[in-house]
Amino acid sequence: MSAPYQAPLAMMRLAIAQIARSARHPVAVEDADPILEAAGRFAQEVLSPLNRAGDAAPSRLTEHGVVTPQGFPEAYRRFCNDGWASICAPRELGGQALSNLLAAAVTEIWGGANLAFAMCPEAAVGAVEALEAHASTAIRERYLPLLVSGRWAAAMDLTEPQAGSDLSTLRTLAIPDGDEWRLSGRKIFISWGDHDLAENIVHLILARTPDAPPGLKGLSLFLVPKALPEAGGLAANDIQAVALEHKMGIRASPTCVMALGERTGARGWLIGDLHGGLSCLFTMMNRMRLGVGLHSTGLAERAWQLARSYAQERRQGRDAAGAQRPIIEHADVRRMLLTMKTLTHAARCLAYAAAAELDGARAGEGSRPHERERAARRAGLLTPLVKAWCSDIAVEVASLGVQVHGGAGYIEESEISQLYRDARIGPIFEGTNFIQAQDLLGRKVIRDHGAALEELLADMEDAVRRLRESPHRLPALAEPLLAELGLLRSAAKRLVAFDTSQPGRAACVAYPFLQWLGVLAGGWQWALSAEHALAASRSHPLAPELLLGARFYATHILPRARAHAVAVESPEVLTAAQPAYI
Amino acid sequence: MSAPYQAPLAMMRLAIAQIARSARHPVAVEDADPILEAAGRFAQEVLSPLNRAGDAAPSRLTEHGVVTPQGFPEAYRRFCNDGWASICAPRELGGQALSNLLAAAVTEIWGGANLAFAMCPEAAVGAVEALEAHASTAIRERYLPLLVSGRWAAAMDLTEPQAGSDLSTLRTLAIPDGDEWRLSGRKIFISWGDHDLAENIVHLILARTPDAPPGLKGLSLFLVPKALPEAGGLAANDIQAVALEHKMGIRASPTCVMALGERTGARGWLIGDLHGGLSCLFTMMNRMRLGVGLHSTGLAERAWQLARSYAQERRQGRDAAGAQRPIIEHADVRRMLLTMKTLTHAARCLAYAAAAELDGARAGEGSRPHERERAARRAGLLTPLVKAWCSDIAVEVASLGVQVHGGAGYIEESEISQLYRDARIGPIFEGTNFIQAQDLLGRKVIRDHGAALEELLADMEDAVRRLRESPHRLPALAEPLLAELGLLRSAAKRLVAFDTSQPGRAACVAYPFLQWLGVLAGGWQWALSAEHALAASRSHPLAPELLLGARFYATHILPRARAHAVAVESPEVLTAAQPAYI
Repeated sequence: MSAPYQAPLAMMRLAIAQIARSARHPVAVEDADPILEAAGRFAQEVLSPLNRAGDAAPSRLTEHGVVTPQGFPEAYRRFCNDGWASICAPRELGGQALSNLLAAAVTEIWGGANLAFAMCPEAAVGAVEALEAHASTAIRERYLPLLVSGRWAAAMDLTEPQAGSDLSTLRTLAIPDGDEWRLSGRKIFISWGDHDLAENIVHLILARTPDAPPGLKGLSLFLVPKALPEAGGLAANDIQAVALEHKMGIRASPTCVMALGERTGARGWLIGDLHGGLSCLFTMMNRMRLGVGLHSTGLAERAWQLARSYAQERRQGRDAAGAQRPIIEHADVRRMLLTMKTLTHAARCLAYAAAAELDGARAGEGSRPHERERAARRAGLLTPLVKAWCSDIAVEVASLGVQVHGGAGYIEESEISQLYRDARIGPIFEGTNFIQAQDLLGRKVIRDHGAALEELLADMEDAVRRLRESPHRLPALAEPLLAELGLLRSAAKRLVAFDTSQPGRAACVAYPFLQWLGVLAGGWQWALSAEHALAASRSHPLAPELLLGARFYATHILPRARAHAVAVESPEVLTAAQPAYI
Repeated sequence: MSAPYQAPLAMMRLAIAQIARSARHPVAVEDADPILEAAGRFAQEVLSPLNRAGDAAPSRLTEHGVVTPQGFPEAYRRFCNDGWASICAPRELGGQALSNLLAAAVTEIWGGANLAFAMCPEAAVGAVEALEAHASTAIRERYLPLLVSGRWAAAMDLTEPQAGSDLSTLRTLAIPDGDEWRLSGRKIFISWGDHDLAENIVHLILARTPDAPPGLKGLSLFLVPKALPEAGGLAANDIQAVALEHKMGIRASPTCVMALGERTGARGWLIGDLHGGLSCLFTMMNRMRLGVGLHSTGLAERAWQLARSYAQERRQGRDAAGAQRPIIEHADVRRMLLTMKTLTHAARCLAYAAAAELDGARAGEGSRPHERERAARRAGLLTPLVKAWCSDIAVEVASLGVQVHGGAGYIEESEISQLYRDARIGPIFEGTNFIQAQDLLGRKVIRDHGAALEELLADMEDAVRRLRESPHRLPALAEPLLAELGLLRSAAKRLVAFDTSQPGRAACVAYPFLQWLGVLAGGWQWALSAEHALAASRSHPLAPELLLGARFYATHILPRARAHAVAVESPEVLTAAQPAYI
């Protein structure tokens, strides 16, 4: 048995401090330590020990609904009792009103300890945000306190068999019934759509009304609770899980086929405007996309912990004196571990940076509207990047973790083999990584003519220039990064200019563009880390490993930028590709 | 249910023809078609339909030994009856004496249809080769005909709990007993170490004799049959499977813990010289490493088939007229499919090229000794490259295959999710991919002062120059490829020169060096393919897709070379990395 997950407190503190230093709004970081330590303890003592067991004996569907793996209901109860369900929510709802930045670190911790479990409370975080922004006073008063406390859980019901990435063909129907609606239809791939952790599950469901226009503009968002709050208790609503998927990973999390309206119609309430479902949904979706990035970062961190610990214990090969050496001393194991570590740290800092911009976008006194708008723009730009880049990194890092373990990593009993399977969902759900890339390039870069991107590139260049002027300089990182930033700026300008004349061009290059920007943004964060640790004090305890990490990122990760860049510059090969020749 | 595996006959014929065209020895390709078609039929009708079932209900250990999944014994019987167990073996042993090149294509087919099954006969291919080269006449006469017919199967027993990549610490003991030996010890990770497909299993076991020097020079190779051929039938030997691993993938293949000598000692016979076990083993090992490359190529091909077929059927998004489009028309799905296809084709051609060199090394009349030596050198150089590069490709291609499927690729019932798990063993077993990289750079490049590499680079440059002079030129591929070949040559020269002064340097860069050479070798094969198809005739049916593939490889794969190159040029960051800071 491997040791349980341990929250990487030192690296998390560093990430938080560096984000705070470079943020344009004041960031309170002094309350971070006790929170992170407590979350780390809970993850280590409660969630991490359940991770393998939940994979080996997944959630199952019984005649009384979904039964989660042994230990999960008790863990959830403790999770809520300790106040973790509500750290981000406002105090007046019973939350702790922590900053998004600090909540991001905590979210990473849950994903690192037990991704399948972590997905459940994360859905409620998104639902609270959507209801706060869009629901009526009556709905908010009734539902928010119960969601914030975790007594009730939440789920987001989008996908139907014919409608995955393309929601325009959704068919689930909502018929008006007085002030309420009656819903019928079938939803698939509903994460935590049913379970026994909470006494009720609040579904946020995208559906079509009878008079609705076709396509995306005819979708409305409805709240459909599993159990209806009635006088005297809860009464069953007409929504239930009728099947569970058998998945390659995140097996403890029940992925449900939900049937609505098999009897009288599921009772539901409209959230936000009629036919305005998509924009309400995106409030929740953006939060959950950031959550995927954070959970993926946690998973990558956990893969690194397992691989490093294995590499310290496993002995193969001999040194000059004939003594067997731990494999961490072998050059290629070092290469793999440093790849895992530098990618994970870059992912973490970038995800935290996105979360901090959410704080900036909401900052109250002392911040000016244009600063809040700028922060919102930046959060919008970073969210798809974080979702896609961090989840791709988790897949790569988990795979390297298996490789460090050798044959021992290929057996089911090893947690690293579970992480390899768990990680693979990240690039798929909450919008595939191509959907993220399209969002990034199409909506966040091209639509505003590159303005938000230019702000980001300027910040990145500032940071690199500061590094160049620091006594430690790190030219190996600074010089190529600065050059790449200039190249990406030019490429983005061409993409913006081309878009009107060649509408298909952006789709051909969106994914490599996202990867290119991701690699450079990771370099930016490493530049900030190196400068921060070295500027703070020559004797900063992390200084040697941060300098090593920054150098390794420069020589072993940053050069990937070239490959993404060439693909971005070569859309013709794809626009010309006919399906028959693929 | 997806359609079963189909052997990609057109692309295989192209690969064989292009290898034959560029080989320095005569290659008979006229017998290829009926063989490939028959193998394709067997794969499609018998092996592929068992693939999912074998994963869902893996081999299990009973008190009578290992019982394989339903259908496997019958499939193996038909496999042998149809003569597939022996295509490569000499006619005098009952084989069909096919060329290694043609056998390579057939091996790819088995890996594509059912990797777990394919591993079993592949072990016998390696054992036949080892026994032919190293066993006594008596052993050869007794064992070879039975192994060639497939009536008896084979297994290779190397790993022990304390000895994985480092075989120097093997402890299994062989004590002399007249003309025989008695073995005792425990071996782990023994693929197909026990099963019910064949009536006997011939184990080739690496063990240490009492008088042996320590380390690798004290290892000898022994033949230990599961059942001893006695007068009147077979008697049980003292070797048995005592446990099976529960693996992430290739679950139908039993991975055994083998106990030897729990009673009287397992009776065994020395193969080759005393204390010369390692070199005997490498005869088998090299064959099996080529096998991993071929099986991985087949798996990648299968992943591509599943993804392409899903992309043709699944409809999401609409065209300008409002009709739903198959996702293969979406730019990013095309990008993923072309990445899968161009990597798979490069892997195939490179693996076939290595197999053809084995034919060249053995060519009889008409070939001169220095040509045979040159071919053997080339096979030695390409074997670790093929094993590592093709298996890494299979992991990447299977992962992309999951991504093309979206959520449907994440459920257990989908074959693509199995392939993602199956593929992950390739970079681990038969020597990890870092072991391959060390073999390539240390033994095949540095030890001969770059001579074999220079021969390869010269051939690659010749091919690219021919392409440049052809009417189709393909400058997008030819120019950067030629430039990269020059850079790799210079880097290799520096590595050769540095090696004596900095022994640790090569280990730091071996893996990126292998990746760099792999990407360029893939480009070389794409250059040959494009030139071959276009030179043959303007109306070659594959011409449009080969030109598209070559262009895509040039813009989307070849630029990866830069990242590997920078890592090769930056060993300092790893030599300086102290474990405490990783």
